[in-house]
Amino acid sequence: MKAELISVGTELLLGNIVNTNAAFLSRELAALGITVQRQSTVGDNTARLAEWVQSAKQRADLLIFTGGLGPTADDLTKETVAACYGDTLHFDAAEWQKIEAYFARTGRIPTENNRKQAMVPTNGRKIENRHGTAPGAWFTDGEKQAILMPGVPQEMQAMWCESIRPALEKSRPETLVSTTLRVVGGESAIETAIAPLLENENPTAAIYCKTGECEIRITARAANEAEGKAMCAAYAEKFRDILGDDVYDVDVPGPAWTLIRILHEKNLTVAAAESCTGGLVAAELTEVPGASDVFGFGYVTYWPQAKAKLLGVAPAVIEQYNVVSGQVAAQMALGAKEASGASLAVGITGLAGPGGGDAERPVGTVYVGVAKGDTVWVKHLRLAPTSRQEIRLRAAHSAIDLLRRAALGLPMPAQSLSAAEARSAAWAEKEE
Amino acid sequence: MKAELISVGTELLLGNIVNTNAAFLSRELAALGITVQRQSTVGDNTARLAEWVQSAKQRADLLIFTGGLGPTADDLTKETVAACYGDTLHFDAAEWQKIEAYFARTGRIPTENNRKQAMVPTNGRKIENRHGTAPGAWFTDGEKQAILMPGVPQEMQAMWCESIRPALEKSRPETLVSTTLRVVGGESAIETAIAPLLENENPTAAIYCKTGECEIRITARAANEAEGKAMCAAYAEKFRDILGDDVYDVDVPGPAWTLIRILHEKNLTVAAAESCTGGLVAAELTEVPGASDVFGFGYVTYWPQAKAKLLGVAPAVIEQYNVVSGQVAAQMALGAKEASGASLAVGITGLAGPGGGDAERPVGTVYVGVAKGDTVWVKHLRLAPTSRQEIRLRAAHSAIDLLRRAALGLPMPAQSLSAAEARSAAWAEKEE
Repeated sequence: MKAELISVGTELLLGNIVNTNAAFLSRELAALGITVQRQSTVGDNTARLAEWVQSAKQRADLLIFTGGLGPTADDLTKETVAACYGDTLHFDAAEWQKIEAYFARTGRIPTENNRKQAMVPTNGRKIENRHGTAPGAWFTDGEKQAILMPGVPQEMQAMWCESIRPALEKSRPETLVSTTLRVVGGESAIETAIAPLLENENPTAAIYCKTGECEIRITARAANEAEGKAMCAAYAEKFRDILGDDVYDVDVPGPAWTLIRILHEKNLTVAAAESCTGGLVAAELTEVPGASDVFGFGYVTYWPQAKAKLLGVAPAVIEQYNVVSGQVAAQMALGAKEASGASLAVGITGLAGPGGGDAERPVGTVYVGVAKGDTVWVKHLRLAPTSRQEIRLRAAHSAIDLLRRAALGLPMPAQSLSAAEARSAAWAEKEE
Repeated sequence: MKAELISVGTELLLGNIVNTNAAFLSRELAALGITVQRQSTVGDNTARLAEWVQSAKQRADLLIFTGGLGPTADDLTKETVAACYGDTLHFDAAEWQKIEAYFARTGRIPTENNRKQAMVPTNGRKIENRHGTAPGAWFTDGEKQAILMPGVPQEMQAMWCESIRPALEKSRPETLVSTTLRVVGGESAIETAIAPLLENENPTAAIYCKTGECEIRITARAANEAEGKAMCAAYAEKFRDILGDDVYDVDVPGPAWTLIRILHEKNLTVAAAESCTGGLVAAELTEVPGASDVFGFGYVTYWPQAKAKLLGVAPAVIEQYNVVSGQVAAQMALGAKEASGASLAVGITGLAGPGGGDAERPVGTVYVGVAKGDTVWVKHLRLAPTSRQEIRLRAAHSAIDLLRRAALGLPMPAQSLSAAEARSAAWAEKEE
């Protein structure tokens, strides 16, 4: 089945709003096995809209509209689409009562304009809106269908999840089940490794890359949910065989969520000492509800005297090795672990730019130290000098990944030192 | 002049990315007086793209493309649009050198595929990309123009601001000058106050609201830049007359940038002690290049023992007043100021949820303390229980705004205490 998304609203054409509806609906439709061929945004102009609907109706089996269902004169999606699908609208007393009740709750009286919102399809069907005054509409003309929803994202998403997605699912003979693997690392290296697995008929798999990590979404079509889950799990194993420990979790919002869960499970605690990331690691960890069970102390030590006072990094070590060095990262991690009493700690020092780099330490040079028990690991990151914020985010995510590996006892892609070596700073960085 | 925006990329049709480029470019074009008639998103399919470009070229004078300039086989925007505008592409040795140099910096060698990115228009012109490997392209066919930019928002925005907007401005008889006021606070209260000012012919003004703050963009059409600037400045005064100190700055990316600038100018330093915001204030401050001149110490004190150890908050005070209280916020601010030696410090404690609220302290209850000299101010925020992340962000932005007011010596919308009162904790919250 081929679909097109049509967003209606001059406010979108003026750029006053970012269109998040298109991305939401595209992902949802892809998960249903419906191909979105085109997304478009048009203004509140009847003639242009009618012309556009007619041509899109030729191209696609299903048109999904958002916006233009409001009470004002320029809200004309419903009338226009009805005409294109050979339908008309009629006044619905029950919808009108809902509108009056909705206004009454906020101490207002609906105007004559609001009666427009109580108009519903004559041959098609109305779609209930439990979160606002504008009902949706579903028109059918032979094999061609059009679905109209409000433009407000919360109302649209609720209507989609409560009414439309279930109806579309019911009309399919199969059940769709999805799972999302989350993978540490950059796009091109991963994509090359797994390219053959992305060419499968069922389950399908797709890769989406973000800053410093990728998502692999596996979707199975199956006779029932249990079978679909088993198919997804089996296919996920093929990715794990190739990507190993880089697959850090399944169906979570991000790496901090995984780390917090692992620390919970292992009854461990963590502390963070941050220089170039300036609190990003702490902020990501504390975004996870329940983080306070495993995270108590964060140190943002931007100045050398903060590193000395809070973490015990000796000024002489900074003097000798540079503040951006493995020696300092190791002492930051160790100092944070000891000062906080946490089981694990991370220390991060680097150059996020834009200024301050030189040939030896270009912008994007970051050292991450992780301390656990009597061991300290140090990783030298050479990040591309993209932007200050991206360097900081990549460094934070690398730090969270090293903490995950250390918490799980996985092999560490980093130089390993004893706490005594880290404390003395008398060690040399190994060439990688 | 009528324009259409065309975003190219299957990743957009799959919903993997929210299309923020469309909103950015729509705003920019509206400010240039160019009407965006339609936005559309199409996939990486040559035949469909060519058909689409031909029909859009009929409708609009200017087509603006984003995406599809990459090195892979399915990146075909440039070839397709060239053909539609009667142009061809040729290999550009200078661009190829740039690509090789870019790869060399990260220790890599470009592949044969990357040569595609060095292809530039034969009759039209290339547009320099200072932030990536893909140059843009500008094709002309009689009165009809097409502009191609990369899809990565940072690269696209830089190319727009550095090359394309200036060229479009030059071709206009008038000069357009814009300025953006940034305003603390929520949408509806501000919008009501300034509604009449948004209905002006020249300069125009528009409001865009984000989490906890709004932008007001003023755009003047004038004979020259100096006249336009003067018009914008005069119109900005009308907003300042209504909104007062809530207008925190002009033409900056966010409140942290303003605070860092003010601290620089006043030769002040700042420290942050964070509980519920968990490092967000420190992370926002350190996102600003040069933050290290004024910010050295951040404390993420998630546990009571961290508040005691790092900030000297007595466990008895937490016991008596609750960890989410003005007394604790005041002691956190004072403790951070004294431990760091900074001129100003903030302390933040609250309930970001989703769990943990009760009738007395619902989720969204946050106390912010600010210490400066011998004074401590305490503000009780009652934030809507939207989401954990939104509560944290609003709390962080309120904290940054209180720091700004304290640094400037503005009236503080908060309860004022002496340092001795804050230290003893023997004070009561005033009813507001």
